[in-house]
Amino acid sequence: MGLLYRNLRIYQLFGANTDVGKTIFATALVRGAAARIKHLESEAPNPEIAPSGVYYLKPCSTGPPDEADDRHVKRFSGPHHSSIYTSCLYQLQDPVSPHLAVKMANARQAAVSRGRPVDEFIKRISTHVREVASQSGPFSWLFVETAGGVHSPSLSGTPQADAYRPLFLPTLLVGDSRLGGISSTISAYESLTLRGYMIEAILVFKDEYYKNWEYLKEYFENGKGREKVDVFSVPSPPPRSDILSKDVTLLDKHYAELADEPSPSSPMSDLLKSLDTKHIARLEKLESMPQRSIDALWWPFLQHEGLRKSDIAIIDSAHGDFMSMAQPFSPPLRGAWKSHIPSFFEQRFDGSASWWTQAVGHAHPSLALAAARASGRYGHVIFPSATHEPALQLAERLLHRGPGAGWADKVFFSDNGSTAAEVALKMAMRAAALRYEKLKKNGPWKGKEMHVIGISGSYHGDTIGAMDACEGGVYNSSVEWHRERGSWIQPPKVAIRNGKLVIALPSSFRQGAGRFFFDISQSRVDSPITKLYLESIRTTLTSLALGHGSFGALLIEPLVMGAGGMTFVDPLFQRLLITTVRSEWPLLSDFKRNASIEFSEEWHGLPVIFDEVFVGFYRLGFLRASDILGVEPDISIHAKTLTGGVVPLSVTLARQSIYNAFLGDTKPQALLHGHSYTAHPVGCAIANASLDLIEDIVSNSKDWKEARTRWSSRSDPRPPEVRGGIMESCEPKVWSLWDPGFVTELSCRPQIREVMTLGTVLAFRLHDPQSSDESFTRGYQATSAEHFMQGVRRAMKDDGADSQYTMHYRTLGDVGYVMCSLNTPPRVLRNIEKAISRTSLRWC
Amino acid sequence: MGLLYRNLRIYQLFGANTDVGKTIFATALVRGAAARIKHLESEAPNPEIAPSGVYYLKPCSTGPPDEADDRHVKRFSGPHHSSIYTSCLYQLQDPVSPHLAVKMANARQAAVSRGRPVDEFIKRISTHVREVASQSGPFSWLFVETAGGVHSPSLSGTPQADAYRPLFLPTLLVGDSRLGGISSTISAYESLTLRGYMIEAILVFKDEYYKNWEYLKEYFENGKGREKVDVFSVPSPPPRSDILSKDVTLLDKHYAELADEPSPSSPMSDLLKSLDTKHIARLEKLESMPQRSIDALWWPFLQHEGLRKSDIAIIDSAHGDFMSMAQPFSPPLRGAWKSHIPSFFEQRFDGSASWWTQAVGHAHPSLALAAARASGRYGHVIFPSATHEPALQLAERLLHRGPGAGWADKVFFSDNGSTAAEVALKMAMRAAALRYEKLKKNGPWKGKEMHVIGISGSYHGDTIGAMDACEGGVYNSSVEWHRERGSWIQPPKVAIRNGKLVIALPSSFRQGAGRFFFDISQSRVDSPITKLYLESIRTTLTSLALGHGSFGALLIEPLVMGAGGMTFVDPLFQRLLITTVRSEWPLLSDFKRNASIEFSEEWHGLPVIFDEVFVGFYRLGFLRASDILGVEPDISIHAKTLTGGVVPLSVTLARQSIYNAFLGDTKPQALLHGHSYTAHPVGCAIANASLDLIEDIVSNSKDWKEARTRWSSRSDPRPPEVRGGIMESCEPKVWSLWDPGFVTELSCRPQIREVMTLGTVLAFRLHDPQSSDESFTRGYQATSAEHFMQGVRRAMKDDGADSQYTMHYRTLGDVGYVMCSLNTPPRVLRNIEKAISRTSLRWC
Repeated sequence: MGLLYRNLRIYQLFGANTDVGKTIFATALVRGAAARIKHLESEAPNPEIAPSGVYYLKPCSTGPPDEADDRHVKRFSGPHHSSIYTSCLYQLQDPVSPHLAVKMANARQAAVSRGRPVDEFIKRISTHVREVASQSGPFSWLFVETAGGVHSPSLSGTPQADAYRPLFLPTLLVGDSRLGGISSTISAYESLTLRGYMIEAILVFKDEYYKNWEYLKEYFENGKGREKVDVFSVPSPPPRSDILSKDVTLLDKHYAELADEPSPSSPMSDLLKSLDTKHIARLEKLESMPQRSIDALWWPFLQHEGLRKSDIAIIDSAHGDFMSMAQPFSPPLRGAWKSHIPSFFEQRFDGSASWWTQAVGHAHPSLALAAARASGRYGHVIFPSATHEPALQLAERLLHRGPGAGWADKVFFSDNGSTAAEVALKMAMRAAALRYEKLKKNGPWKGKEMHVIGISGSYHGDTIGAMDACEGGVYNSSVEWHRERGSWIQPPKVAIRNGKLVIALPSSFRQGAGRFFFDISQSRVDSPITKLYLESIRTTLTSLALGHGSFGALLIEPLVMGAGGMTFVDPLFQRLLITTVRSEWPLLSDFKRNASIEFSEEWHGLPVIFDEVFVGFYRLGFLRASDILGVEPDISIHAKTLTGGVVPLSVTLARQSIYNAFLGDTKPQALLHGHSYTAHPVGCAIANASLDLIEDIVSNSKDWKEARTRWSSRSDPRPPEVRGGIMESCEPKVWSLWDPGFVTELSCRPQIREVMTLGTVLAFRLHDPQSSDESFTRGYQATSAEHFMQGVRRAMKDDGADSQYTMHYRTLGDVGYVMCSLNTPPRVLRNIEKAISRTSLRWC
Repeated sequence: MGLLYRNLRIYQLFGANTDVGKTIFATALVRGAAARIKHLESEAPNPEIAPSGVYYLKPCSTGPPDEADDRHVKRFSGPHHSSIYTSCLYQLQDPVSPHLAVKMANARQAAVSRGRPVDEFIKRISTHVREVASQSGPFSWLFVETAGGVHSPSLSGTPQADAYRPLFLPTLLVGDSRLGGISSTISAYESLTLRGYMIEAILVFKDEYYKNWEYLKEYFENGKGREKVDVFSVPSPPPRSDILSKDVTLLDKHYAELADEPSPSSPMSDLLKSLDTKHIARLEKLESMPQRSIDALWWPFLQHEGLRKSDIAIIDSAHGDFMSMAQPFSPPLRGAWKSHIPSFFEQRFDGSASWWTQAVGHAHPSLALAAARASGRYGHVIFPSATHEPALQLAERLLHRGPGAGWADKVFFSDNGSTAAEVALKMAMRAAALRYEKLKKNGPWKGKEMHVIGISGSYHGDTIGAMDACEGGVYNSSVEWHRERGSWIQPPKVAIRNGKLVIALPSSFRQGAGRFFFDISQSRVDSPITKLYLESIRTTLTSLALGHGSFGALLIEPLVMGAGGMTFVDPLFQRLLITTVRSEWPLLSDFKRNASIEFSEEWHGLPVIFDEVFVGFYRLGFLRASDILGVEPDISIHAKTLTGGVVPLSVTLARQSIYNAFLGDTKPQALLHGHSYTAHPVGCAIANASLDLIEDIVSNSKDWKEARTRWSSRSDPRPPEVRGGIMESCEPKVWSLWDPGFVTELSCRPQIREVMTLGTVLAFRLHDPQSSDESFTRGYQATSAEHFMQGVRRAMKDDGADSQYTMHYRTLGDVGYVMCSLNTPPRVLRNIEKAISRTSLRWC
């Protein structure tokens, strides 16, 4: 949500504990801000602009009404009363935590805790803030006071620090000046920091016995390696008197001393000046970021020629599916005034799930906590011949109930998909070399470098080894050290066109199919297409073997080639290709017949590598490709969502037969690959926490159950036959979080060539004069998807009050796609579908 | 420090705040444990073993002596008194935070806060614990009660959560049952988690009005993605009475109800049983880890043939320079008893600074906090054409006051040194290709692949591109896809032999040098060696140019080749090599003369790449290699200590002229390289925090000043002449944290071939029949360093009470090395030097 306005300085007050003086500070701030406005407006009167005001919001108040915080603020807001406005959204009478007060209070109030309470709560606050921002002058302030301590439960029961997080408001932490208050203040600060909050100042009373303020000032202003935080201390309020009128007089005098004087002599004026400076500095910094970034950064995969400031997305924070992006606009900071005040931030749905890494949304507190815990327990620790709990736990879960279950024996860690692919290639080549040993000595392979067999359009990363294992194309051919080391097979592609699932064969042969069947049912295995595929595979492999001949691996992206244009490949074809290279590798039988050479006893065809970096961990709605393919690899590669979208980490899984190829008497026979941060505990711990969250979604998500039901009625009624998988439930494996009706409808629009979806991925290819059906290379240079997605963003923006966000997207030439997290709420998906649908109508 | 004993269940009690009932819970635990022991010993009496006891330790107590916590525990420890022992190490009388009490108290007590107070404090506690462990029977317990809240300052002023961290004791958090207590309990839990503590249970009173225990139970036992923590709630203690005797009676009754019954009916017996189970499970898990790790893990750079359980280092936690490693031993968990009780953990100095990544020690709380903050604010966010504060801040600091200052214009992010090297190669090759463009069309390079010029023995990573840029050797030649793409120059090596610095020239020519001068002073530039080097460089380059001819980059590890055996190269030679390829690239003049071909106007020789992954960021005592070399690269590579040893992140810095080579109208002209987690905010934020800490050490460390002084008296008195550097202070740039006297002495030992040191690195090469002077390849397969370092570890172990730790080390064939953090305390270094020295004497 991230709220930021030029004219309105918004600060939220969190307390280190209950009863530490939040309301006292809020009152002093309100009164001081009013004095400051009066002073500034008297210095530079401008009758044309809206009057500035001070706004106080207590979203949720507990306790008796006559002691309510907003009443206290109103009573003591002093001589500048006309510009002060106080509000409370939820008033609960019992002096307990709001979540309990809700339980105790009447039914009307309790209703707010049902449904999606945090969303509801945040929506009410942000609506209020938008209203305030739209009516207030250029020097305005808004103070939002939370209830109790930072983690006191909100109405819904969610701890406040989590509940308020979507708003990402700059924060003032009111410290505890009592005995024990040093500890609770530092802990509260750490809890806020774990949620990423910007803590602009710590406010604390000058208790002269415990002197917490002295310690806290030293701690926060000279924190080595910690971000410096200003500590403001003010005299404690007068002790309470039993006589109300005396109390009022004393307190009023106290507030006057704290706040009334807008010159530097009053404590509040110093604080407010500092907050004003920080507010302006933040705006200026955000405005400066595009140019500074262009000056200093060299971005990946980007042509920098002619880059303009407006091309740069400034990401201020992110939460769940949304990124808060700054929208610097032209009017100067002070001066000309407009009645319509746009927020400095636009909320954008993260349409590429942050480059395909997000699994459970941004900034999940459990992942932040996991990162913190591992960082605090280990930092990084050396890995070769060492072990630690996060790495071992992750390895075992990947082997026993993860993608390696049932076939993989060993886990090799590295840092990203590309390095994991290089490791996989080293593994496969060595294993193949040993299998080939006699052939290499005597046969036609002698001296030849081993190549891979791959599928046209595949992608495995950008390091030279990974690049060499991909077909040459627009992408890699300009890289000086790249050269293709493989041969590539054209695959049959699956897509929905005009509401029907079709298989596009390389030869332009098309076979219509009445029902959605992105799977391998027995009926498909028995159908004529199997024969067709097998003939084609055997012919191609024979011609490859006769041509280059020395192959070391079959390397595929199972089911979907992501970077290659979100191309969905018929799984039946991939399965037949795998079984063929394993059992009938053509030259093998040739050799057996002609050359009577003995093979290694372990021989079972070429090692098969699955690059599941993109498709793995439920990105497509299932744990792993073999759940659909029904055959397992010898080596598999995993990264991206493995760590739930926080830090890089990758693994290469392997069978024992591959591992055995590296056993020997000498070190050079070992797998000589490693990176300094191999199996870093922070990454492993985040992966473990993320997999916990994913497992919970897979098992318990109502949204998933409903989506599966929607799709199961559309797919082949015969249950898919999956062999060797570990997910042998009755749930349909082939399904999507995107709505089947919408998908069908979209596929019928004239400008849409085809649509495809699985799990979290929705992809569509546009008719584009720049692209052709068969050549992805040409399609990639097309710009039609970019134009279409611009339309989608506009549609979301123009949608008015109903839609409070737009979308950040990536495109692949003539392919547009949207990828969500595993837990994106259905209402968000429906909203995006609506915008895509409307755009596709306009586009006609 | 990490303390763990089979016979002694140690738990420390932290409080969510002050006055939440820590002492009440401690008393109940002590009383319950005594009952449990009595019960267990009656069930299985064994007169041969030592009697078990319950120990209570209050390291630091404040307040009046008659209310002291240890006195309270003693008073109420109930009917099992004989087996209960209470202690307090520091008794302070004022009821304030210990740090203030110290200020208020007398001089003797205040003394403990001077010097190295946390170390002193921890040493006293661990000595106490060791004594307890050595005298107590198999069912014993020790409860350590902290003071106030988790972050209440300890005697030294350091927050307790940090001060107690080295002991890494399993933790019980006493929650706050009052209003606001939900918040303070969760925050305290998070603060402990940020320090990596294992929190075994949360203990809280059943306050029936606020019902915090209900909320906390739900929160901690069902935390999605958070580690599950058991919450134990017990009835609140009786309200205080004014009559002391009545108070005592009521309390005693309360404790009896809580604790006396060892059967399941008492709340404490349930808790203690659960803690006992956890204690045993932890031991069993640690014991199982070696075999489970061998079963599941495939380690980097390790020959797995014949791997035994005892080869595996189990890292339980790490702190500062030390890793706490489990030492499973044979006696069964219950049964036979020994009088000597070894700790389950051995503390090992991290002698490879965790594979060369650590800069400020393990588990630094500021780095954990930085990781948490970025994780909580962003998670990962997409980077191409986007920007965020941590990445921009890091990029600007690298360019403006980091290794790129004065020459680099752009920062490209990737994940590790190897990928950063691939990026650098792609950059250099393209820039060179454009420079060569006309030559490539017309000259002898036509169609030839560009190669690098490198130095023999260099290493740049394990991805294929990075491997190809290294000389073929024992390491990479067994990798199927590797092939050398470069030519390699033998460098003159610098080392200390028999107390004298010598330069070993490739031709076996040696030039003695009386003083330590690993730098480039004017006197050296003017000396005959410059002429010698230049002639050799020109001859070699000419012969290379005549041979292969098409070179795209000069790629060097400046000053030290780490993986290649900690080889120190004469910087004068490297400087002359750089200036020569820039100004006099031999074939260029040939072409200018013979072929009259026009060159790109930007031509200035070959692009020069510095791989500073190992040497950068003060690993050698200076920020960057150009501070010593006096010349700057066109491209530089940085990783490892960049993130202070927490998570992987790397950068490739480049000049504008390199960047310009990728500008153009089309995307394929851009640098087509990227990883999903490019510039991940968590890594960038940790890097920023780590660089803050490093800058603080560089500017303010007394230890550094002293070390520099020790070395400056030994080095060339003329200040080194450095051009273009940003660190132009008067401090000597060439120095080491290791003692010069020790280094000289070691270099004179007969079995030591040579020694070398700079900054944090101490390396020595042994005389070894398996190795020869010139061939590192043979040296690498030697095992002499492993034998020597085993001796060092033994020497540290046998050193008795003075040394509470040994060392974890890595070796490189016949080269032994120790690498410390930038802030390793001198006393630790001296201790290691002593062990090395003693070993080298024994070795004779």
